[in-house]
Amino acid sequence: MSEAARLMDAAIRLSLRGLGRTAPNPNVGCLVVRNGRIVARGWTQPGGRPHAEMMALEAAGAAARGAELYVSLEPCAHVSPRGPACADLIVASGVSAVHIAMRDPDPRTDGQGAARLGSAGVAVTLGTGEAAARQAMAGFLSRIALGRPRITLKLAMSIDGRVSMPGGESQWITGPEARAHAHLQRALADVIVIGRGTLEADDPSLDVRLPGLEDRSPRPAVLSATLDAIPASAKFADRDPLLLASVDDLCGLAVNDVLVEGGAATASTLLAADLIDRMLVYRAPVVIGDGAPGAGRIGLERLADAHGRWRLAETRALGNDRLEVYARTR
Amino acid sequence: MSEAARLMDAAIRLSLRGLGRTAPNPNVGCLVVRNGRIVARGWTQPGGRPHAEMMALEAAGAAARGAELYVSLEPCAHVSPRGPACADLIVASGVSAVHIAMRDPDPRTDGQGAARLGSAGVAVTLGTGEAAARQAMAGFLSRIALGRPRITLKLAMSIDGRVSMPGGESQWITGPEARAHAHLQRALADVIVIGRGTLEADDPSLDVRLPGLEDRSPRPAVLSATLDAIPASAKFADRDPLLLASVDDLCGLAVNDVLVEGGAATASTLLAADLIDRMLVYRAPVVIGDGAPGAGRIGLERLADAHGRWRLAETRALGNDRLEVYARTR
Repeated sequence: MSEAARLMDAAIRLSLRGLGRTAPNPNVGCLVVRNGRIVARGWTQPGGRPHAEMMALEAAGAAARGAELYVSLEPCAHVSPRGPACADLIVASGVSAVHIAMRDPDPRTDGQGAARLGSAGVAVTLGTGEAAARQAMAGFLSRIALGRPRITLKLAMSIDGRVSMPGGESQWITGPEARAHAHLQRALADVIVIGRGTLEADDPSLDVRLPGLEDRSPRPAVLSATLDAIPASAKFADRDPLLLASVDDLCGLAVNDVLVEGGAATASTLLAADLIDRMLVYRAPVVIGDGAPGAGRIGLERLADAHGRWRLAETRALGNDRLEVYARTR
Repeated sequence: MSEAARLMDAAIRLSLRGLGRTAPNPNVGCLVVRNGRIVARGWTQPGGRPHAEMMALEAAGAAARGAELYVSLEPCAHVSPRGPACADLIVASGVSAVHIAMRDPDPRTDGQGAARLGSAGVAVTLGTGEAAARQAMAGFLSRIALGRPRITLKLAMSIDGRVSMPGGESQWITGPEARAHAHLQRALADVIVIGRGTLEADDPSLDVRLPGLEDRSPRPAVLSATLDAIPASAKFADRDPLLLASVDDLCGLAVNDVLVEGGAATASTLLAADLIDRMLVYRAPVVIGDGAPGAGRIGLERLADAHGRWRLAETRALGNDRLEVYARTR
């Protein structure tokens, strides 16, 4: 790996600090490097401002002059009421070169940030670490490309695809390692969605129960065409929950990453609408038999219709369980 | 790996040639080695005779004198109407040393084979490659230890644990690589079992459709408490099918390896009776939704009862699908 690739990789890893908290802005990471040493770091702050570049340049101060900047997304070219354009800030800082992992597909920037830097005499490279940057900002990119958040369905399942016992018992199918991993996924999502049935049956907390990440609980949302209001008695009622009357409401959320945690009716609705981009299956080495399934009817007529939609993007052990990450293929 | 370990490994791999065809005898592999060169090979022949040692010694002829013999299971000590005791044959052959992977737990041998060799002045080592030998003869060892065959349940499933579409369509959930692997498992089984429902719904062939292995189709069996006879119209009717009126009949089969291929009622009966030793799950990257499950009620009262019974012994990609091998833990 070249020095530039290593530094960009560090900037991208830094970008993950903001994941789940920067919406509607992308989670970006930025480094200021002088003579091969990192002199300042920045990442998009909660709520989306300051941008990573502004944070890094403020931290660098005078040290930015003549330095190189590594940033996981093209610096923005537009001034907004919430802050200046990063491209202008960079030019003003005296940075001599800017390495950009990927062009910003947001039409307000989309090449104009890089062009402004180039016009001002800043050396610009584009594309180092692009694949990793795409992965780190998958939710934001999904929103720009599809006009809706990336939607991830989480399922904790037995070998035979059951998510609970016949009577509803589901605590716990998976072990502590898998549950901790699932809680981390909550911390990385902007919004967590359940259906009315799950709310009424389980009244879940939908929070992040991981030491040090307790404040990273995503905003709760209930998808229900029939619910008038979310009861004030719900465990998550104090976290400003959203009531989504339809999948259109869900798709219209101005966030990057939505995590769907159940139940079967909600999963089926979203699968049938072909709105699931990713599935996180936590597979426990148990057979349940006649318990409740993770999904019901999803509108397939023939087996051929089921094929070709998913690929196993990742699988690994989590304690006695196994994580299977499925990504949509189209 | 030592020279002895390598040679024993070769003998064990040779033993797999007989897998599924040697019952009620174990599938054994045997090498005759002279000055580090393999001069003869043997493996238990279909029906269980000749034994691996007899085949190898006959092939070696005079070259056996002073040679070393590698065998995956202790040579038998008992004369039967079907053949002499291998321990006697080995002594008569003039072999100077015998390497045995594992002691034969069959009470008719159980140490007496090795003892007879030792008494006759043959050098005996025991235990090289024992773990691999145990795995290669798992069915036989199960029969000796539990008094019944090893029972393997095969399931071709979607991510969500469905084995067919709501209307019953199940061809194909998995792709050609997974199906070929499943056919190879048939070739390695003595008996293949389905339930009455599967017979009536699918009339499956239950044969081995792999080039060169067409003659390795296992004996078909139908588990049904209510069926009077297997209809002569069944596709496998010409392969001397067995009618099993109960799981006791199944357990009483004088074979080593039984493969259970469906359907849900049969799987549930055997899971509920805790008679499944191994599950081969072929997992396709598809979501089906409200199709038929692989198993129904298996008699669990609480989720805790489901835990601790299985461990994922192996997993690997088979084309677009994935094989999950679960082994019982107790």
